[in-house]
Amino acid sequence: MSQFINAKDTLVTDAIDGLLETSGGGLVRLDGYQHIKVVMRADWDKSKVALISGGGSGHEPAHAGFVGAGMLTAAVCGEVFASPSVDAVLAGILAVTGQAGCLLIVKNYTGDRLNYGLAAERARAFGLKVAMVVVDDDIALPHLPQPRGVAGTLFVHKIAGSLAEQGADLDALVEAATRTISSMASIGMSLDTCTVPGSAKEERIPAGKAELGLGIHGEAGVQQVLFAGAAGAMDMVLDKLGAKIGSGAHVAILNNLGATTPLEMSVLAHELATSPKAQNIKHIIGPAPLMTSLDMHGFSVSILPLDAENSAHLAAPVALPAWPGMQAITPVRTLPLPDGLSPIKPIPSANEKTAKVIAHCCDLLIAAENDLNLLDAKSGDGDTGSTLATAARALKGALTRMPLADHTQLFRAVSNELSQTMGGSSGVILAIFFGATGDACANGKPNAKALLVGLERISQVGGAALGDRTMIDALDPALRALPQGFAKAAAAARKGADSTAAMGRANAGRASYVPEENLIGHNDPGAEAVARLFEGLAKAM
Amino acid sequence: MSQFINAKDTLVTDAIDGLLETSGGGLVRLDGYQHIKVVMRADWDKSKVALISGGGSGHEPAHAGFVGAGMLTAAVCGEVFASPSVDAVLAGILAVTGQAGCLLIVKNYTGDRLNYGLAAERARAFGLKVAMVVVDDDIALPHLPQPRGVAGTLFVHKIAGSLAEQGADLDALVEAATRTISSMASIGMSLDTCTVPGSAKEERIPAGKAELGLGIHGEAGVQQVLFAGAAGAMDMVLDKLGAKIGSGAHVAILNNLGATTPLEMSVLAHELATSPKAQNIKHIIGPAPLMTSLDMHGFSVSILPLDAENSAHLAAPVALPAWPGMQAITPVRTLPLPDGLSPIKPIPSANEKTAKVIAHCCDLLIAAENDLNLLDAKSGDGDTGSTLATAARALKGALTRMPLADHTQLFRAVSNELSQTMGGSSGVILAIFFGATGDACANGKPNAKALLVGLERISQVGGAALGDRTMIDALDPALRALPQGFAKAAAAARKGADSTAAMGRANAGRASYVPEENLIGHNDPGAEAVARLFEGLAKAM
Repeated sequence: MSQFINAKDTLVTDAIDGLLETSGGGLVRLDGYQHIKVVMRADWDKSKVALISGGGSGHEPAHAGFVGAGMLTAAVCGEVFASPSVDAVLAGILAVTGQAGCLLIVKNYTGDRLNYGLAAERARAFGLKVAMVVVDDDIALPHLPQPRGVAGTLFVHKIAGSLAEQGADLDALVEAATRTISSMASIGMSLDTCTVPGSAKEERIPAGKAELGLGIHGEAGVQQVLFAGAAGAMDMVLDKLGAKIGSGAHVAILNNLGATTPLEMSVLAHELATSPKAQNIKHIIGPAPLMTSLDMHGFSVSILPLDAENSAHLAAPVALPAWPGMQAITPVRTLPLPDGLSPIKPIPSANEKTAKVIAHCCDLLIAAENDLNLLDAKSGDGDTGSTLATAARALKGALTRMPLADHTQLFRAVSNELSQTMGGSSGVILAIFFGATGDACANGKPNAKALLVGLERISQVGGAALGDRTMIDALDPALRALPQGFAKAAAAARKGADSTAAMGRANAGRASYVPEENLIGHNDPGAEAVARLFEGLAKAM
Repeated sequence: MSQFINAKDTLVTDAIDGLLETSGGGLVRLDGYQHIKVVMRADWDKSKVALISGGGSGHEPAHAGFVGAGMLTAAVCGEVFASPSVDAVLAGILAVTGQAGCLLIVKNYTGDRLNYGLAAERARAFGLKVAMVVVDDDIALPHLPQPRGVAGTLFVHKIAGSLAEQGADLDALVEAATRTISSMASIGMSLDTCTVPGSAKEERIPAGKAELGLGIHGEAGVQQVLFAGAAGAMDMVLDKLGAKIGSGAHVAILNNLGATTPLEMSVLAHELATSPKAQNIKHIIGPAPLMTSLDMHGFSVSILPLDAENSAHLAAPVALPAWPGMQAITPVRTLPLPDGLSPIKPIPSANEKTAKVIAHCCDLLIAAENDLNLLDAKSGDGDTGSTLATAARALKGALTRMPLADHTQLFRAVSNELSQTMGGSSGVILAIFFGATGDACANGKPNAKALLVGLERISQVGGAALGDRTMIDALDPALRALPQGFAKAAAAARKGADSTAAMGRANAGRASYVPEENLIGHNDPGAEAVARLFEGLAKAM
């Protein structure tokens, strides 16, 4: 499977540089590539306790994405899924640690514990105050004496980060981090494993199954289960966390393990927010990618009891796009639908002449049904005639309900009739045409000018102009000629309609998808309908 | 392919409710499910111009994720990749539009144009001021008269959103939106199409190829190209944008189309930041998922010339986790590596007795090489003896360079020697042991107590305790007995080492992965090494 990388060897360094280049100058790194990959706050003055985390890469935005005021001071990054070396960690410690000391926040993997542990020893030999906490929040394998560190690590980053920013000393930070670690729990579920760059993907999870409790390096989970949709998945995860969700308010991290879509994550958020098993989860961080596993199609939930203190630290704002903030989980609030969704029923009024003209127009379109269908068959599905005739029949039948004496209201009423009785995009376009014409009448324009406003509007909304092989090619010249009488308008419409037969390329509407040779020699059916209408009206007037 | 959804029919409504439930009460929706899906700001008082966008779903966080002060007032959401109905858009307009009017921001797709267009007409019939702009930023198909609207839409949301929040009137907003739309350009590239829920995935892009210019609904692109890594991909995209990148500063949106990993997006960001073709791109929004296409493994770049005004609007902060902010693109800044990465060279000093003891220890381990290897073969790869012997030989050879007269410095020097000459995690653990012992000496502890501090530290870092079948099972009792002399210490070590033969379950270290039946009856090789060491010392003392 291709990936947007250049080479496995430069993947992590390219990505780190990309992060630095797009962080507005807020981050710097040590000059230690390839071996030493340490990302630090650019504004760090060593006046407070430094927080250092890191580990293997492939979990982005963790950890470099969380370096900034209020969270980490530095991240020491290894290659994908590989611990950074002792030298790299030591370089990070030496670069950021001042009198106040530093706290190493390490996920519980042997390589990380040892390398961070030895680096801490080395740094202490220089007289630096270095403490280390190990995050082991994964409850997937209940009998594992060394639970892994996963997305709950973010709780530690944020709480300790906020405390450190306030000037807390190293002992207070160790105490807060230790308390946080001991009271949290995490578990993940995935529909697929991850693709490690340069390696073949392990196709371990069969279709229709999900894996519960797999690790953030794709380590096999505690069991493969039948996948029963988002609700079933969240229920199973909350069930596992159940024993850890005590009384009192909790906060959850809803973590995207990499390739789950925002749409799916929101569905999972909905399941979490409404599950009876999560009633004590009152706040949420995410859904967001926080501790990913490359492109894993999965999610994890981490929980932590909330008290006044850690709540304030988790809620404290930080200027890091990767941190989504903590939000209260709230029920869905709805507002009633606004009045006016059903179009205002016009008050019928009489005008014999207007009624006659409209009826005549309708008859003309009904009479043209078959011809227009045949013409449409050249470029479409052969139903233009029927679509127009159906609408014409309905309009004729509605004439007694029409406000015939008030042109503004009449145009609007025709618009509503057409939008209800005429299918397809042509129905919408004609509805817009008459609606905008009605608006223009309301603003005092005479009919002929008002119709031009309608034309302009459908040109804007539909995106078609003269020469695009649509009804506009007949309607535009006809309306422009209309002040000189129906005969002139009819002649202009006919000329315009006939000109469409030479238009090979349709630029808008359905005919834009039809090969040129099918179009040449045939009038556009919409334009032809307009021409027949004006020709008929010219005869009758 | 499974997805974390419940049913196709409820996918979009579930996701919208999930968004509302996790937005801290900042969003409400109209009570119009299933048909009408309108998300609005909870704090909206109609005192300013309302901004309404939307369209088909599947592009999350667009559009509902951008509803909030400073961006959209409401989003009208259709089903996946399907325009919302006229009624749904009209409901949105009627719900949020006050005296100041509203601006519809519509991506250039026929369905959206028509449905938003007719809804606008209907709303105008109620006397509301409604304007509509159509976003057509996609330059993928240069001859297409109706370019599609893609991620550049976010420029419009943000600029118009900031202006509206400042109280600009509808005309000013139309003018700014129109100017923004006419000066921007976007293009995307993907390694795969997207998976539409409920439909089979179209496997259109063969392995090793990428598609340039495909649409956000998976519509086929302008061409399939050989995929030449992240650099080649970004180069091709910038090449297409080249004609649109004029003189003066520009801003780019680097958009994740759905399933591209954060690691890959950062690599692409690095390519964009360093490409000679992007020299005029001075600011960036992202990399982030902004206008996705479900799970598409691709990215897009949108560009816009920057001036003082739109720059201020794009930079204005908004409290929406989906909006990543705009950052200046900066070169990578590096700091020199800190001093101290090479351990301080100890000043050699003489102490014949100490030299003798260490040399004897080394000889004991060298003599035990074969036995320990055989023992290790039961539970590991049979190299514990060789690993220890190699380190012992090196240490013996280094004795003349050692600070033999200063125990603090000596323990630290042994730590450094072991970390350099002894491979594997055991080398790191012993280095930590002697390092922590040296620190304790520096703090004034006598040797025996200092060694216990070292033991405590490796127990913390390595995660092993008594009974875990490691060298600690011999080392712990030996060090505790040491104040009573070497004979007692040796006896305690032997007892401890022999006790490991009965330990079936290894809780830490490599042997934790070995079946119980392979372990029972054999001493742990590390514990055995400790016992032999103390037994040998007891004889010699």
